[in-house]
Amino acid sequence: MNRADLARIEEANAEFYAAFEAGDLDRMSAVWADGAHASAVGCVHPGWPLLRGREEVLRSWALIMANTPYIQFVLTDLHTEVHGDQALVTCSENIITVDDSSGPGEMLAGGSVVATNVFLRVEGEWRLLHHHGSPVLNQMEEDEDE
Amino acid sequence: MNRADLARIEEANAEFYAAFEAGDLDRMSAVWADGAHASAVGCVHPGWPLLRGREEVLRSWALIMANTPYIQFVLTDLHTEVHGDQALVTCSENIITVDDSSGPGEMLAGGSVVATNVFLRVEGEWRLLHHHGSPVLNQMEEDEDE
Repeated sequence: MNRADLARIEEANAEFYAAFEAGDLDRMSAVWADGAHASAVGCVHPGWPLLRGREEVLRSWALIMANTPYIQFVLTDLHTEVHGDQALVTCSENIITVDDSSGPGEMLAGGSVVATNVFLRVEGEWRLLHHHGSPVLNQMEEDEDE
Repeated sequence: MNRADLARIEEANAEFYAAFEAGDLDRMSAVWADGAHASAVGCVHPGWPLLRGREEVLRSWALIMANTPYIQFVLTDLHTEVHGDQALVTCSENIITVDDSSGPGEMLAGGSVVATNVFLRVEGEWRLLHHHGSPVLNQMEEDEDE
């Protein structure tokens, strides 16, 4: 595996989360695959069914970002596999967000999401083709892993 | 995309679910990548954190199959993308199983899981490298999709 490629894939992965943290739809749009690959773009938000197609996926991000006043990710267990022009990244998203469900306030809430991110190399750029995030509901196996 | 390849990938995907339905650990073992790729094997069961490595993943399947007296899958929304030797399959797993949590019985229970399956072509055979299944908790977006 090419070391420079690996660094570029991890940068693309980090930019996906940074765009969400910044609530910046333009940056989020730039992360995802476009053109001939737009219709193959897929995204599973935690607990959601699959959304298909770049337009549908970006619409969901606009909605989610509009409803997320604050979010921060600490990524752990980052693992990257490259096979040709496709890269498979997995990571744990350790999330800090603001829970204002019990009224406006500064309550910080946390959570853990496991993510599968598939990137595609298009004209030298690694673009996100598929994101699958799911809630970790049961910590039992994680303890066993350590 | 090669038509014969596509058929072989969809066969490999179907065999993954058939092995689970049959509760056959040998068939399940044959589905997953081995050899040089064994350490890169990854699996997320619905609600679980990521399990890494062929041995760890197959151990989880042995446990799950031992605790699943009956399960049947109806796959819908099957979508396959091939880029070189890596294939990305997504599908909805519509599950029929037996719920005996309220005592022994014939109660059928259902559920919906969205799956991302990544296959790798190794010596001409498509082998499962990564499975990510997650519960669909909210039907809201599915309705919007239609």
